[in-house]
Amino acid sequence: MTTESKIKKTQTEVLIIGAGPAGLMTACWLARTGIPFRIIDKRTTDIFAGQADGLQCRTLEIFQSLGFGDRAWKEANHMLEMAFWSPNEDGELARSTIIADTIPGISRFQQCVLHQGHIEKWFNDSINKWSGGKRGVERPLLPLSINVDESKVDDAEAYPVSVLVKNLTKDNERQKQSIPEQFGAKVENGLYRQFDGDQEKFYANLKTDIEEDDTIDKEEFEVIECKYVVGCDGAHSWVRKQMGINMEGETTDFVWGVLDMVPLTDFPDIRKRGAIHSKDSGSIMIIPRENDIVRLYIQLNEIERDPATKNASEFGGGIEDKTAKTKGRVDRSKITPELILKTAQKIFAPFKFEMTDLSWFTGYQIGQRVSPKFTKHSNRVFIAGDACHTHSPKAGQGMNVSMMDTFNLGWKLAYVIKGLASRDILSTYESERIKVARELINFDHKLSRMFSGKPMIPSKDALTKGEGVDMDEFHKAFYKGNVFASGTLVDYSASTLVVKPETTDDVYFESQASNIPIGRRFDTSLVVTHSDARPIQLVDRMLSDGRWRVLNFCGDVTKSAQMEILNKISDFVYAKDSFRIKYTPVNAREDSIFDVLTIYSSKRDSLELFDFPRLAIPQDHKKRRNYWKLHAGIETTLHEGECNAYKKYGIDTEKGCIVVVRPDGYVSMVTDFSLDGYKKISNFFDEFMIPQTKNILPPQSEDDIDRFVKPLFAI
Amino acid sequence: MTTESKIKKTQTEVLIIGAGPAGLMTACWLARTGIPFRIIDKRTTDIFAGQADGLQCRTLEIFQSLGFGDRAWKEANHMLEMAFWSPNEDGELARSTIIADTIPGISRFQQCVLHQGHIEKWFNDSINKWSGGKRGVERPLLPLSINVDESKVDDAEAYPVSVLVKNLTKDNERQKQSIPEQFGAKVENGLYRQFDGDQEKFYANLKTDIEEDDTIDKEEFEVIECKYVVGCDGAHSWVRKQMGINMEGETTDFVWGVLDMVPLTDFPDIRKRGAIHSKDSGSIMIIPRENDIVRLYIQLNEIERDPATKNASEFGGGIEDKTAKTKGRVDRSKITPELILKTAQKIFAPFKFEMTDLSWFTGYQIGQRVSPKFTKHSNRVFIAGDACHTHSPKAGQGMNVSMMDTFNLGWKLAYVIKGLASRDILSTYESERIKVARELINFDHKLSRMFSGKPMIPSKDALTKGEGVDMDEFHKAFYKGNVFASGTLVDYSASTLVVKPETTDDVYFESQASNIPIGRRFDTSLVVTHSDARPIQLVDRMLSDGRWRVLNFCGDVTKSAQMEILNKISDFVYAKDSFRIKYTPVNAREDSIFDVLTIYSSKRDSLELFDFPRLAIPQDHKKRRNYWKLHAGIETTLHEGECNAYKKYGIDTEKGCIVVVRPDGYVSMVTDFSLDGYKKISNFFDEFMIPQTKNILPPQSEDDIDRFVKPLFAI
Repeated sequence: MTTESKIKKTQTEVLIIGAGPAGLMTACWLARTGIPFRIIDKRTTDIFAGQADGLQCRTLEIFQSLGFGDRAWKEANHMLEMAFWSPNEDGELARSTIIADTIPGISRFQQCVLHQGHIEKWFNDSINKWSGGKRGVERPLLPLSINVDESKVDDAEAYPVSVLVKNLTKDNERQKQSIPEQFGAKVENGLYRQFDGDQEKFYANLKTDIEEDDTIDKEEFEVIECKYVVGCDGAHSWVRKQMGINMEGETTDFVWGVLDMVPLTDFPDIRKRGAIHSKDSGSIMIIPRENDIVRLYIQLNEIERDPATKNASEFGGGIEDKTAKTKGRVDRSKITPELILKTAQKIFAPFKFEMTDLSWFTGYQIGQRVSPKFTKHSNRVFIAGDACHTHSPKAGQGMNVSMMDTFNLGWKLAYVIKGLASRDILSTYESERIKVARELINFDHKLSRMFSGKPMIPSKDALTKGEGVDMDEFHKAFYKGNVFASGTLVDYSASTLVVKPETTDDVYFESQASNIPIGRRFDTSLVVTHSDARPIQLVDRMLSDGRWRVLNFCGDVTKSAQMEILNKISDFVYAKDSFRIKYTPVNAREDSIFDVLTIYSSKRDSLELFDFPRLAIPQDHKKRRNYWKLHAGIETTLHEGECNAYKKYGIDTEKGCIVVVRPDGYVSMVTDFSLDGYKKISNFFDEFMIPQTKNILPPQSEDDIDRFVKPLFAI
Repeated sequence: MTTESKIKKTQTEVLIIGAGPAGLMTACWLARTGIPFRIIDKRTTDIFAGQADGLQCRTLEIFQSLGFGDRAWKEANHMLEMAFWSPNEDGELARSTIIADTIPGISRFQQCVLHQGHIEKWFNDSINKWSGGKRGVERPLLPLSINVDESKVDDAEAYPVSVLVKNLTKDNERQKQSIPEQFGAKVENGLYRQFDGDQEKFYANLKTDIEEDDTIDKEEFEVIECKYVVGCDGAHSWVRKQMGINMEGETTDFVWGVLDMVPLTDFPDIRKRGAIHSKDSGSIMIIPRENDIVRLYIQLNEIERDPATKNASEFGGGIEDKTAKTKGRVDRSKITPELILKTAQKIFAPFKFEMTDLSWFTGYQIGQRVSPKFTKHSNRVFIAGDACHTHSPKAGQGMNVSMMDTFNLGWKLAYVIKGLASRDILSTYESERIKVARELINFDHKLSRMFSGKPMIPSKDALTKGEGVDMDEFHKAFYKGNVFASGTLVDYSASTLVVKPETTDDVYFESQASNIPIGRRFDTSLVVTHSDARPIQLVDRMLSDGRWRVLNFCGDVTKSAQMEILNKISDFVYAKDSFRIKYTPVNAREDSIFDVLTIYSSKRDSLELFDFPRLAIPQDHKKRRNYWKLHAGIETTLHEGECNAYKKYGIDTEKGCIVVVRPDGYVSMVTDFSLDGYKKISNFFDEFMIPQTKNILPPQSEDDIDRFVKPLFAI
């Protein structure tokens, strides 16, 4: 471009491309931590029907930590049981078993389902709240080119990434394309993908240097300079293409249709999650939804293919896949609600099945693909969500894993951009999330093939075994799958941010807490707040506000030796050379970066508030006491039954331990409850935190003090 | 007025005067049931600080039934324990005991506290939602006269009440008076009452016939003709004055101050609800609030009186009370936050007490008063809330009982206005609520005197007993008081709407359900939905949507005799001459008035959905099945422990019973689970329901059917 550009240039810290769940989660973290960002989307409007709907346990836990878990829990349909139906010994469709949809004890939440549009609304509300109304999705904005100044990628202060975007507001033809067909006169559906195929043609038609082209309206363009780009632009990711990364994986011949409707049926389990294997007509998955809607995933065996696309890969096209050898692409125009319903009726037989109030339909060809790279340009450009991994939707994983990607990335970007942590921590995004993506792909590969395969008819004679998918194995796989699918088993490997042996592939515990797996999410336990006797889930004191948590399980502090340790730790944390002071910005509130919570094992009524040192009952600059850091870990509560955090976490009630939890709720380390333990914690933070020296001007008057002594992350 | 009035005349079904909690609850019911109404308030703005804050169990249950219980539960501060402090044997302040603030088992909610402004916001949101954005509080509108055409009061179709109102928007002087002082430059406080004293002067100055007065801007006036007026305009109720009703009761010499602030103290129980009796300096009640605020009620022993008002009654004046003989009115200008704080410091001694972030203060003189009448003009004009009863605020009852008044009234007005029930049911408003008000006044009378009295110092010698309030008795009274204060014991007497012996003063049960008190609120139990296995609180299937509930506890229907009864009942309810058809408007959805729920005692997996008759699994006009009416009452749930509704309600698991619950959640009757039982239910409804004959035009086409076959109350 020429030096006197006619196209406006703007700067922001992070540019998020794509405003689906992955992009919105990124924006939510950045809004919460006070990082300037922009989030753009080429679509004109929000989603109103169809799309993803499953909310897994871990996702609900994170929504709760972001402040809107209650909305999900209230509005979504809860799925409790999963019913399996397959041919009995006489070849007739029969209920073979019922399992728990969410394995009891795995989380305080259970899997539930709700239309994606609601979820996007909660994010938008949250972004609006935390950014003080300053930020929100900008649309329709189409990215055209991305450019990274490689000479500046290591400079934490630089804005090395430039993205040229076009505002489509005035571009009638483009805009028309950016309106999903679901808003048209026909029944809303997911068969149409915006900009498919012709997107590249459009770019080719744009002159390389639009600055020189006087036929173009320069007002419609903008160059956004930023520190980081996060591409959350879906399976056909434009950002991924710009990075020159191809997905790896394969496609199957299994084609499935989806219907969102209200069923009219005498099938008794229509309000339970269900898996039906018919003898010869294929399979169905039932997902009962909010407002009496039911979603059916229906295997379409008889759909016509386009022979010309025999070696092409993706249903709907767009992704290059050299390994694919299929019967060819499905002819999309042949997929109609009537066809899908007809197939469903065959599978449901002898039960009757009709429908009313059809609200959405789509079709897809099963495949599993994962991107070999999630980042490029020295961690300046990232991709996340469907841009990194695509698979079948039946385990309800897509939207969840996508949001988990950017829930992993968001706080790391915030720490680096605020100058709190070194850029090195950004490398853990790819290493942590690519492992999850690969596990997901393997899981889906296995499960979806079992789902699409013909069922084995149980033999009346115990010795012979028929052909096909063994339904007992299928049930077991699903049960195991439901544990995996909950998202609570995600296990990050050893890194700067996770302290455990590098060789460990399996779940790893330290001896001090035999039930706190290092690298996994910190599970909750009920505890009782000392000051007001309120039972509270411990993780509800550990909201996703950008802070690290150091949990002092101080054991039985009615023993003077144990209270002595707590006193020493308090002095250590308040000493001038402590990690707390070193890495907390000068004049920020003392718990801005490290939030220390104390949980004792003693009886609550044997201890008084002022028995405890400063660390457990700190005061702020106005001498206001913080009453919310000290908890009893073992108690019979008045209204909520027993709580025993020490038992749940496998912690010795005498000696205790210390647990360090990352801002995203994953366990970094467990160590002794001792001064020595705190020295290990210091060393841990020394590896990646940046000493803070910046001072904010001292307050001019007593009234001014609130303005100057700020929490680092708005609270 | 002349026939060609210059003042505009409008009509509405109900005019609500006053938009505090009682008025908003009325509006909420009417919005929910689709009744046209208006709600006016003379104040210019909402409340932002101070005022009432306690939310009792029953109130939270009702909020839940109105759809916003979750907001209260999330935003409010929960109070778990109550700490009592008084002089020990050495006369030093010491913790004497701790009790549960909400008695365990009394409700699924526990008492919590939150600023009144939040509560008013939930109501406004709900009114907006259910009225489709059509209705909301109109302000500042001042009522000037009320006129009832007694010749028309018995005509259900007439609009016999006319209220002349003045819009204060253009009236600068009036409007200034209608802005509470809390929005001024000084600290917000509750000492100022709008229009006190000079209100009557203002009315006197208005010419009797403003139509004739050409100096008056006619545009500012409006005559609202309505069927009913509900006066929710506070302790100094204008509506009550127009009805010519005087409050009855008395005033004490006890003066209390209130502070909302953040405390700086070494008193250890400042985040618990607390009662402190100091030896000589008076008492304090501590109410810990949301956002680290604490409210203190502080006894002011040394406040100056105005001797000229020695025989006047009410602090702040305005209410006539001939029985009062006090030291005289408090000089309001002498009540300052500094004075209140100074007194608090003496009571807290030897603990230190300072404060910061003062957000509100007020002062009041304790008295208990109740109106002898709650209605006049043949149930055309009602008063509710503070207009009917005033007392000390320390039990957190005022706002709660006020809302309960109109929660009792609202659905009755809706039934009468819709022509579903006879006007006779309106008489139960006064009979049911005046009993509650009197109980409340007695309760408060006792408790507030114990609170304000000097404590007895425990003697070291067991034989002698000191003077003053016995603290053990005080603790016991408070414990008992907390049960009463929960609002769950309210017990409506025998009436058209409550079937029990008229002579019964005490709690009454039928033998079929030994734990369902007739006339009290129907308590909840966890049950499991048959169709989707979801555990749900039974009352969450019984939302406040205007419908009666008939609960079929059908016992063990795996026994064919029992299922036979259910089948017969189903036929009875669907028979052409059934009460259901008789009293449900023609072409309204079949469960518009009577919602029948079925709860069996058998094991869930021993029964299939289609084992049950139509009544338990009904279909609508589009053949869509209702999957939410059939429940298992006894089960070990996957994630929520045991549920046993039969045990909780004291119902025989073999035989069952039937329970009829009013639209406001109070138990009308319990009878046998039998056809005979259903005949008794028919007779019950015959007493006050009006047969429906109005027909809506039949649908023109299949697509039209949804438009015509409407639920009676919007769902």
